[in-house]
Parts: sequence; C-alpha cells; structure tokens
Amino acid sequence: MQMSEKILQFLSEPARETPFLVLDLDLVVERYREVKNALPDIDVYYAVKANPADEIVTALADEGSCFDVASIPEMEACVRLGISADRMSYGHTIKKESDIAKAHAAGIDLFAFDSAAEMEKLGRAAPGSRVFCRLVTKGEGADWPLSKKFGFQVEIAEDLLARAKNCGLQPHGISFHVGSQQTDPEQWDAAIAEAAALFRTLDRKGVSLELINLGGGLPARYLNDVPTTARYGDAIMTAMHKHFGNQMPQMILEPGRGLVGDAGVIQAEVVLIAERHNGKAARWVYLDIGKFGGLPETIGEAIKYRITTPRDGGETVPSILAGPTCEELDVLYEHTPYPLPKDLQVGDRIEIQSAGAYTWSYAAVCFNGIPPLKQHVI
Amino acid sequence: MQMSEKILQFLSEPARETPFLVLDLDLVVERYREVKNALPDIDVYYAVKANPADEIVTALADEGSCFDVASIPEMEACVRLGISADRMSYGHTIKKESDIAKAHAAGIDLFAFDSAAEMEKLGRAAPGSRVFCRLVTKGEGADWPLSKKFGFQVEIAEDLLARAKNCGLQPHGISFHVGSQQTDPEQWDAAIAEAAALFRTLDRKGVSLELINLGGGLPARYLNDVPTTARYGDAIMTAMHKHFGNQMPQMILEPGRGLVGDAGVIQAEVVLIAERHNGKAARWVYLDIGKFGGLPETIGEAIKYRITTPRDGGETVPSILAGPTCEELDVLYEHTPYPLPKDLQVGDRIEIQSAGAYTWSYAAVCFNGIPPLKQHVI
Repeated sequence: MQMSEKILQFLSEPARETPFLVLDLDLVVERYREVKNALPDIDVYYAVKANPADEIVTALADEGSCFDVASIPEMEACVRLGISADRMSYGHTIKKESDIAKAHAAGIDLFAFDSAAEMEKLGRAAPGSRVFCRLVTKGEGADWPLSKKFGFQVEIAEDLLARAKNCGLQPHGISFHVGSQQTDPEQWDAAIAEAAALFRTLDRKGVSLELINLGGGLPARYLNDVPTTARYGDAIMTAMHKHFGNQMPQMILEPGRGLVGDAGVIQAEVVLIAERHNGKAARWVYLDIGKFGGLPETIGEAIKYRITTPRDGGETVPSILAGPTCEELDVLYEHTPYPLPKDLQVGDRIEIQSAGAYTWSYAAVCFNGIPPLKQHVI
Repeated sequence: MQMSEKILQFLSEPARETPFLVLDLDLVVERYREVKNALPDIDVYYAVKANPADEIVTALADEGSCFDVASIPEMEACVRLGISADRMSYGHTIKKESDIAKAHAAGIDLFAFDSAAEMEKLGRAAPGSRVFCRLVTKGEGADWPLSKKFGFQVEIAEDLLARAKNCGLQPHGISFHVGSQQTDPEQWDAAIAEAAALFRTLDRKGVSLELINLGGGLPARYLNDVPTTARYGDAIMTAMHKHFGNQMPQMILEPGRGLVGDAGVIQAEVVLIAERHNGKAARWVYLDIGKFGGLPETIGEAIKYRITTPRDGGETVPSILAGPTCEELDVLYEHTPYPLPKDLQVGDRIEIQSAGAYTWSYAAVCFNGIPPLKQHVI
C-alpha cells in the first residue's frame, strides 16, 4: 500500500516542522464509496471521534453520510457544519443527563444505552426518542476489543427494551460492536444471530424493533494485511440474510477507523538512536512523536503501525521504538519486532502509515511542554 | 490528609462544570519550604513538566527555586515569566539538535545526556556547556519506575564523561532518577554510592566533576501512606556523607510530583453506575474524567489516587472505576480494590485527591470531542 500522489507531493514540499499528520480527503471519499458499494442497503454513520476534522465531516456529508457523535462538542461541530439532527445518532452509552437534554433540544432522536440507569436518563431528558440497546460481544479477532466496559447480555437487553415504552421511549433497535480494527469478517455472524433472535422474542411480546446497528470494526491497514471491504460486505450481508430472512430491518454501520485510518500519514523525525544495555542490549530509536503526542493506540502495542523510512531496502536491525517524552511508559514498540534500517540516522524523517484515525485529536495538550499534533487535510 | 481550607472553600461555591482541577498554591510553597528545610544544601530544580501552570512557576521562582525544563516550550514559558537562564537546566536526555541550539542561544548551559549521540549533538549545538550524564537505576520501590528507557551503565558513563572535553563540553556531573513516586527513601543510597565511585574514578583520570543531580522521586500521597519529607532528607544526606565524605559536590534535586501532587484536587461527576456481567459481575462506576482526560498515570493502574465522595462513611461495595470515553481501555481501576459507597448516585460529585501532578497538561486535545481538563490555581 503506497502513499497517495497527493500525500507524496505534500511531503516533497519544503520540510515542515515534525511531527504532523497529513490526510488525503480523496482517500476518505473513495473509502466511503467502497463501503457503500459493498453494503448498498446500509446507512453509514461516520464515527466522528475517529477524526473530527471539519473537512472530513463536510466531505462525508456531501457524500450522503450520517454521523455518530460521542459528545455534545461533536454534535455542535456537526450542527455548525450544516448537518441536520436527523442525520445524527448519539451512540455513546455513557452520557450525562444534561448532555442528553442538549442533544434532544437540538433535535437528535436516536440514542444508545446499555444500562437501566441510562435508559431512565433518556426517558427523562429525551422523551419520545428512538433508542437502541447495545449487546456485549466477545470481541475476538479485534486488535482493539470492546467487550467489557460496554454492552449487556441478551436477557437484560430483552428486559429493558420491553420496559422502554414505560419510560416514554420508542424501543427501536439493537446495536453491538465487534471490536475496533476487527480483522475477521466472520465475527459479525454470531452477533447478528443473537440480535435476530432478540428481534423475534421481543416481537412475540409486542415490541417491534426496526433497526440493527452493526457498529464499527472495519479495519485500517496496519502491519498485517486485512480483508477487503468487499469481503466484509459479503460476510455481513450473508449473516443478515441468514438470520433475518425476509424480515430485514434498517441497517446502520458506524465506521470510523475504516474510513479515515488509511487516509493519513504522520511524518516524524528520529531524535536519537542509542544502544542501551538496560536489561537486554538493544537499539533504541526515539521519535519526536509518542504515545502522548497522538499515538495512544500503541498502548499495549495494540495497534501496530507500518513505519517507512527513507533508507528502507537495505540491512535492518531490530529496534525498540520510543516516544520523545520523559515518561518511561512512552515506548511505542518493545515486544513487536520492528526491524529498521541499520544506517538510520538521527534527523531522518520517517512516515507512520495509516495514521488517520484516533491520532490527531488524541494528542495531549502539552505533555512535557510539547504542542499537540498538527493536521493538514489536503 | 484533608483538603485545604482554600480548596474546601472553592468547592463550596456554586458548582462549576466538571471535571476540573483546583490547585492551592500555598500548599506548593509550603512543600517547597519543607523540602528546603529537609535538604538545606540542595538546589531545587522544579520539574516544570509536572504542572507547568504560570502561577506555580512564578510562586516557586519567588521562593528561589530553579527549574528543570523538558522542552523548548517549557523553557520559553520560564523566560516569559522572567526566570533567567542560569536558573534552568535542560534535563531531558532526548533532544533535537535544533532545540539544544535554541536553549544554548537562550543562555542555558546545563544539559543532560545519556548516549554518545546526544553528547555529540550537545558538543555541536551547545559548545562549552556543562553536561551531566544520567546513570540507569533499578527503579525498585517506585510506583512509576524509570529504569529502561533512560540512563546507562557506569562504565559507559565513565567513558563518555572522559571524552566530553574532546566534544568541547565541560564534564560537570552525574544524574540518576530513582523512579517517580519513589516510596522508599533508602533507594538513593545505591545510586549515590555508584555516583561517588564514578566521581573518584574520573578524578584519577583528571576529570573533576562538581555536580550530583539526585533526580526526582519525592512522592505525593496516593492510596498508600508515604514517608515524610524529613525522612527523605535524612536518607539522602546520610548516603551523601557516607559516600562522598568531606568531598561534597553541588547537589541538585528535581522534584515535580513531590511539590505539586498533593496541592491539587480534581472534582468529577459520576455519569453512570451500571451492574455488568461481562466476564464477572461487578458494579461499574463511570466518571466524567478518565485516562485520556487528565489521568494518564492510571495506565496499568500505576498511580492509585485517593477518591472521596459525599457519601463516605457508610456501607461500601467493590467498584470498577471507568472513564467517560468510548475506549475500552479507558478504565481507571479494575484490579485495584476501590470500595465506594453503596448509595453512590449518578450525578454525585467526587474528589480525586493529590491530583496536582501529571494531570492537567496531559489531557487529550479533544478525545471523543471532550475538551481538556480545566485548572484553577487559587
């Protein structure tokens, strides 16, 4: 996977101060169309949190996308960009009641919940809204699983959806999240089966659901190869037909990483190369970006970015990659093998590929005095 | 350890939007004097990175403190506040050559290094400067060890300090860091012994060192009790006299957390309480602050903050504490027991005690759209 012509052109211009993220908007639009092509019957709700840049939201709005917001500032940004409330969902399951009221006042009427207390808050602060309830999934196959902090078992979901009307809400659907960066398209099958069974159970109780929210999970291309978007489309639609038959509900997908991840490249600089013998002998390569400068997803070495250097192609040596701050914890990769060119030099500029998601807006305000990551959307 | 009168007064005023950090400047000054009292012969270099608020830097400057900066923005902030360059050290061992040149141009002439490449950079960009070399330590007894990413063995340090003159630098001293939040005052002894031996070895080679930088490590009061500042003073000075005899070098201490940690309190709100059965049955308590909103030191549950609630004193239940974001990783304490009041309610305001260090400036720019932590210095 090569960098786009636009990004290559941008990086060939007189050097800008590193680190920075450059993001090619064309790639985002291209990926959006690819997803719509693979899943034509699905409404895409872009997960704004993945990269909330105005340019991205606007470009996706022009393509017809809807938007999933995780907070009031994200909703306000969408409103400011001219997106109507009926194209937004508030899919985060942990919300202040005052924030629910603000979203309701702005016209949003599609909300997620995954606890009794949250449902009660919704009933008070957003009466009459359509709600969907998030099931827990195993999160197998995901590099960034979402399996414990959110969601509940199908029995509890059944009970709460049956009671939603009494709270003054419209029980509208089921959601789940198979885990971010889900590299196995077959993971949707079990969750869809469970959702379909719940649709039928509730239908027998007189509660008719209309929506299945298939969550996020579409991957970016990190160190390991990932299946094509078409394969995800096939797997998801096969499972939908298998479990829902001819009673297909409205379908929502919430890609974030899958739309913007591959569209961005971070350029960083090698600040220091040092042979250390602390514990074991190793070559340490220190970059001017780290966990706290926009790469929080390297915590636990979960997300393994592809890294390219101007000296690729020759002899390599195993390297520990670390960030620039005083924090011992600010090490990017110590256990994941990262062979880097033997002749890598201090001052070299390297590229962190597929870094468009969960980076820019996740940098610290001024960790060690370091300013946040800059982003150029081109 | 109670909250100060000033903080209690501040928190009793009409409720401000949470989360926020309130920091009592008097407590910082008081702790500074306590450190100077326990270690009168030591020059204190406040580690600005712990909390770079202008008010803190100014108050400590008025007390006579010097400052350790980790980056050019930190240096520029000190310059802006009227602190002269001879009261600053650039103690971070991983610096861009262009940043070294900026610091040198501003008049800083005291720099750290812990690699051959860094020493060479210093020779080129800050010729004539005084340099000290960082030894690696075991970091035992520290809640936040600093034992791998930085520092080197005594043999390598000896070799490089002996060569520093050839790089156009003044070999000036030794530094080490026993680990942040070091709860065992005896941990300085072994490092001081090693440093003293190195002083003597180099002296025989005609390299006369003048400075020992004893690093940071003074703790704040988290969940567990910590020794008094006086005990740290005793342990450090006992070790200094034991190993340096009547050849005492200039001594520097770089407290950050130890000066500002206990001076700050974060007020946060309970957003949701949910019984979950995901894996094991547990009560989850979600706050409006988490790992990415200013509590990065809860990664790995390393720093265990004391948490107080308005309902303390009655029956408690074990609770998993989580942050407000969509990240599964944004869980504060899952393995550390946090019994919280059984009757804790959504909407309750809780206090995270001793949260003055490594919080405010470490919040993400807009994680999930959430604005960074606010700080009120009073």
